[in-house]
Parts: sequence; C-alpha cells; structure tokens
Amino acid sequence: MPITMYDLAGVENDRRFSPFCWRARMALAHKGLAVETVPWHFTEKDKLPSPNDGRVPVIVDGGTVVHDSSAIAEYLEKQYPDRPPLFGGEVGRGLTRFVQNWTETVLQVGLVRLVVLDIHRHIGPVDQAYFRQSREARFGGATLEEVVKDREARLPAFRASLDPLRRTVERQDFVAGTAPSYADYIVFGAFQWARAISDFELLAADDPVRAWRGRMLDLYGGLARKSPGYGA
Amino acid sequence: MPITMYDLAGVENDRRFSPFCWRARMALAHKGLAVETVPWHFTEKDKLPSPNDGRVPVIVDGGTVVHDSSAIAEYLEKQYPDRPPLFGGEVGRGLTRFVQNWTETVLQVGLVRLVVLDIHRHIGPVDQAYFRQSREARFGGATLEEVVKDREARLPAFRASLDPLRRTVERQDFVAGTAPSYADYIVFGAFQWARAISDFELLAADDPVRAWRGRMLDLYGGLARKSPGYGA
Repeated sequence: MPITMYDLAGVENDRRFSPFCWRARMALAHKGLAVETVPWHFTEKDKLPSPNDGRVPVIVDGGTVVHDSSAIAEYLEKQYPDRPPLFGGEVGRGLTRFVQNWTETVLQVGLVRLVVLDIHRHIGPVDQAYFRQSREARFGGATLEEVVKDREARLPAFRASLDPLRRTVERQDFVAGTAPSYADYIVFGAFQWARAISDFELLAADDPVRAWRGRMLDLYGGLARKSPGYGA
Repeated sequence: MPITMYDLAGVENDRRFSPFCWRARMALAHKGLAVETVPWHFTEKDKLPSPNDGRVPVIVDGGTVVHDSSAIAEYLEKQYPDRPPLFGGEVGRGLTRFVQNWTETVLQVGLVRLVVLDIHRHIGPVDQAYFRQSREARFGGATLEEVVKDREARLPAFRASLDPLRRTVERQDFVAGTAPSYADYIVFGAFQWARAISDFELLAADDPVRAWRGRMLDLYGGLARKSPGYGA
C-alpha cells in the first residue's frame, strides 16, 4: 500500500508549493517509496488525519501518522534502513541540521520577501484571506505588496547570501558531495517553492546554483520538473 | 616520530593565531597524533620545507610534506584510517565543505573586519609592514584603522550572521552532532584566531555559540584554551 502524503496545493490542485512538503516528497523518492499525494489547502485544517497540528506535510504509512518534515525524514530513515540512506550516518545527520538552519534563517527568509505576493496569486479566495492576514502579521503589518515592492533592488543581496551554497555546488555536484542526500532536499525545497508560484528569476543564467537546481529537477525521472511551475 | 607542523605565530612565539593552522592542530589532536609545532612568521617564506607555497599550515610526517589545511585533513583521514574519523563518511565529507564555505564566505569575512587591526598589534615590525600592505590592498586601500573603526556598530549584524551556527549548537552539542568532527574545527578555527589576538568580545554572554566555543576550548585537555589568547 502506498504511503499517503498531504501536500500543500494552490487553487490548481496540482500546483504544489510548500518547501517543507518538497523535502518530504524528495525524501520519499530517494527511498524509492510509492506515494499518493492528497492536495491540501491552507484553510482545510480539519481535513488532516489525527494527530493533527494543522500543518503539512503529513504522511500516513499503514496505521502510522507522521507530521513535520524533519520527523518524516527521521521516520523514513528508521523505518526503511535497507533503502538508500538520507543522512549517511551520525556526522551526516548532525551537519544536515546546519544546512537546515542555514536554509531556514538565510535562504527562506530572503526568498519569502521576494515571492510572498506570488504565493497569494496562486491560492483560492478563502486561502488568500487567511494567508494575507497571517503573513502580514509576520511582516510587522506591512502589506504583501509593500514587502515585495523593492525586490529588484534586493536581488543582488539575496544572490550574495547564497555564496556558501554557490561555492559548494561549484566544486561538487550536490550539497552532500557526489550524490544527493537529505541536505540537498532541504535546500532544494526552498527553490522549488519559489519555482512553483513565481516567475521572478532568482538566479543569473551562469550561476552554479542554477546548474545544481537543474540537477535536482532532473532527479527521479524529473519528479520536481514535471510539477507545475515557472522557468526551466 | 612526531609530526612537525609549521604554525603561524605572533611576535611572541607561543601566540598562534591562524584559523587554518587551528583547523590542522585540532584535526591532529582528534586523531590522537603527536605533533611538534614550529613557530613561523608571515615573512619567513624561505623557512618552510619544500614543496613550499609560502603559507602555513604545513606538516611533515616522516618524509611526506603536506600543505593547506584541507589537504592535511584529507591526508590524515587517508593515512590514519584506524583513528577517529574526521569526516564520518562521504556525506559527512560533502557537508563539511558546505560548513567550510559558510565559514570562509560569512564568518571569516565578518570577523576580519572586526579584528584585523588587533592582528597587526600582535606581530613583529617586519611582519607588520608586510601585513599592512597586503591586507590594506585587499580592503581596496582602506587603512586597517579605517576597516575596524565602526566595529561596534557592525557587531549586531555580525552576531545575526551567526544564526545558522547558533541554532545548530543550541540544539546539539557540536556542529557535527553529539561529538566534534572536522566541521567543528573549521568553524572553531575562526573563533580561536580572534581569541588569540583580540579582546573584542564577539559574543553575548548568553549566546549558545559562546557555550559551544567553551566546549571546543575544553577538548583534548584544553589544548586551545591553554594557548595564549583573550577571554574565557
């Protein structure tokens, strides 16, 4: 029986744009596990299985419900030890957390200020009201339009903030070395989030990060590339 | 026969302040290898063993000369496979490069603009002339005094730039997880560089990064703490 995964969707059910859901989706593919995704929308809190914390990703594997992308990765690694490892041992697990913390304090923080209005454009009216209210509160009351209005001017600083990633994937194919591992999926989730909902080009044509993103889009038969989005 | 390591020193021979030499020194201790260090000064290019690229660290192990901290770590891992691993496998090695690239593009770049004048104060007159000329050229002609003059104002941004590290060592004892590995030594080398030559307090008293730095200073019988420096 395939694993079920609740996956954040736009007004079009096949547009999947949560960075955390993409982490889980790529981890499932890495493990070679069959999955059926269920499109889920911001305001459908009561449609999630129990225990329910109102957020995705959530997976249901047989009788087991696991939510939170980090918990899902740990679950898969423990439950399917004979399949390709996501972490590559204890040091790999520890260092993956550093990559996660960089992604969440630098990359995603920079990205959301570039594309948050584009998210709003891709969700339904009920979700839009929820999204605008909750996100504008996070931005100290600035409207979504105000948050992104100088994004062209902020693009050089955003690109500069990618230097640790850029220098890494310039010298090796993946963040984790010669093959992708969970750290790659964490970083890629952020780019796939942006790609799903925004045509704003984040990366210069000759940026090594763009070449790495291309390699990630190619994985698992083009799983991420086939998903609705913008650009290459 | 112990390994010989050429180690950057100040006007006092026991003040060792190269971040790259500290990576190698900690890696040797991690492997449990005996080492005799040779104090070396910026302008003593002709005192290094051959092949000589004019920089430290350089180690001599029997008849083998290895220079560059990354090459030294790889050499030790390959030559002493039965001793505690520095990388913890291929994923660990790949992700260590991400930590290294963060250290070199964010941490060390931020640090040098806080403490570069303090380095100058701790080296001899001949080295001072070399250091001032070469470093001021790197800063686009700004004097060392100009580079650091607004450092108090830049301290909050520097501290904020440590967020990925802070969040990591807040949740686990070391960058690499429950035990230190080479990634920890890379990051620590930067802090030990600053500690050796500057009394400028980089970290707030309650910063989890400071607690981690304390754990690093305690390793291997207090190896790094016993080396001349400022602060705890």
